[in-house]
Amino acid sequence: MSREFHDNLIVIDALEYNNWDREVLEELHAGGITCVHVTCAVWENARGALKNICRWYRLLRENEDLIIPAYTGDDIKIAKNKGKTAIILGLQNSSPLESDLGLVEAFYRLGIRIIQLTYNNQNFIGCGCYEENDSGLSRFGREVVHEMNRLGIIIDLAHVGERTSLEAIEASYRPVAITHSNPYWFHAANRNKSDHVLKALAQNEGVLGFVLFPDFIGGHQVTLREFCDMIARTVDMIGIDHVGFGTDLTRKWPGDHRNWLRLGHWTYNVAYGVGSPTQPPEWPQWPEWFQSAADFPNLTRGLLDCGFSREEVTAIMGGNWLRLFSEGLKAA
Amino acid sequence: MSREFHDNLIVIDALEYNNWDREVLEELHAGGITCVHVTCAVWENARGALKNICRWYRLLRENEDLIIPAYTGDDIKIAKNKGKTAIILGLQNSSPLESDLGLVEAFYRLGIRIIQLTYNNQNFIGCGCYEENDSGLSRFGREVVHEMNRLGIIIDLAHVGERTSLEAIEASYRPVAITHSNPYWFHAANRNKSDHVLKALAQNEGVLGFVLFPDFIGGHQVTLREFCDMIARTVDMIGIDHVGFGTDLTRKWPGDHRNWLRLGHWTYNVAYGVGSPTQPPEWPQWPEWFQSAADFPNLTRGLLDCGFSREEVTAIMGGNWLRLFSEGLKAA
Repeated sequence: MSREFHDNLIVIDALEYNNWDREVLEELHAGGITCVHVTCAVWENARGALKNICRWYRLLRENEDLIIPAYTGDDIKIAKNKGKTAIILGLQNSSPLESDLGLVEAFYRLGIRIIQLTYNNQNFIGCGCYEENDSGLSRFGREVVHEMNRLGIIIDLAHVGERTSLEAIEASYRPVAITHSNPYWFHAANRNKSDHVLKALAQNEGVLGFVLFPDFIGGHQVTLREFCDMIARTVDMIGIDHVGFGTDLTRKWPGDHRNWLRLGHWTYNVAYGVGSPTQPPEWPQWPEWFQSAADFPNLTRGLLDCGFSREEVTAIMGGNWLRLFSEGLKAA
Repeated sequence: MSREFHDNLIVIDALEYNNWDREVLEELHAGGITCVHVTCAVWENARGALKNICRWYRLLRENEDLIIPAYTGDDIKIAKNKGKTAIILGLQNSSPLESDLGLVEAFYRLGIRIIQLTYNNQNFIGCGCYEENDSGLSRFGREVVHEMNRLGIIIDLAHVGERTSLEAIEASYRPVAITHSNPYWFHAANRNKSDHVLKALAQNEGVLGFVLFPDFIGGHQVTLREFCDMIARTVDMIGIDHVGFGTDLTRKWPGDHRNWLRLGHWTYNVAYGVGSPTQPPEWPQWPEWFQSAADFPNLTRGLLDCGFSREEVTAIMGGNWLRLFSEGLKAA
């Protein structure tokens, strides 16, 4: 019964970081995912991002029975009507912009529709959530925010530091996204967000994507009920219109790929971010109720069981993201 | 009288290599140019081409009262209706592809609609017109030709070697362009084309753009009548449907920029291509009847005076390019 309800929803996952292949795309289909935001750069420069974007052009062509690209909100609705999954291309770092304002439009042309301003570390735009001191949005950062506003590229603050996040929300004249983070009070991790940031996000008409990556929920033992109770409490704080999901699924990566995410090419030392600072990271175990995108119907069921109305579940599962993307991806 | 006729024509210049600014754009307007193909890379790699393309996005935005981008044949007609000039972005070398087949689509997305396979020298696709030995179209070159065919990017052979040109025409299942060259019999220069290539071009339903760069017409003393007689003889050989203009105008460059065109970053020696092999190149003097794009009406007058019918002049001044671009820029 809740599965039938789920299958009629527009379901949006505001971030999955998988090692994409056809099998993983089929998991999206099995989970009834209408739209997913994927990553074309983490530490890459312009050339490296180009390479990753080209790989997506090929994936899209070779799997056109399962996926279509999404450049507008309408593309998401088209995907729903066709029973396919819409793919939004994004960058999890502004490193591909290489301090060159012109490249914002270039990446827009290439299909990028979401850019996270920083990834954990400081860059030419602002500071990431693992820096000790956050100097806020830089001069170039302000230019980039306005250029993204003009073109219709969504600003993502998931891995961005507190002060830079607040200043970016202030500088942006359009709603922004925190695609994959939880409230800090649910689990104390640098990647999770303070009440201050969450309230500023809601005032900006932005959306928070609840993350399921085990490090940011306190491990795989968390129950679906505990997770949904956290959602209920967050909704009490910032309203039903400002929440969704961004699972951060990391399907099919070899173990050592996590070193790339943490260390990139910026350090030779051990500096693993979350988890132990001295042990090499391993991919964590996920909750038994959320092993892949195919388990998305469990989230719908969990929200219903937790007491959310069907209308509320519709908003949380994708309605809020659809509104943000439909408006945010239009040119100013 | 011929000016009024000229102003009603669709006038296309299949290559101008100017140091673009507003004044040069106003010369296009003064000359009644409906569409011009411009250059975003000569020796640049992917990143360098990106930078030049971004400069064009900015020029287009800051001069939108004069110019609009052209991605299809319809855009050229829209420009004519609005009294503006349509800009087709192109690459004069495949160096920005960096041996990466995926980048063909990336540059298509960025707005590139014409790519010259080689520029004077050999590259990973084929050989340029100044190489002593031409090994023909490479394995990668064949892939790129087919990818350009698929996407709707026009193949340009102006600076390409004889054998590579013939093999590219053979490999392409869509018409190709020689945007800016003359017949070799008119002036013996490596950049001009043999009867063999011109006939293969006509068989392919391609178009040749007559070039006005002084080194390829035998100097600035050539008269308009001599130039138009050359056109008449070429039309006798390959037909009225396969000729147009590609002036290769080089407005406003400082003197030393020509070193970049000749030497790029591929040699520290003097190797200047056309002109003296030992004297540094200077920008040549242009014919008094063709000093800038503002003199395009002289070409219309010259063709009429030479005995071409109005229908024939319409084809030569832009009708043939419009046909090639309208068909060639459609996705396969």
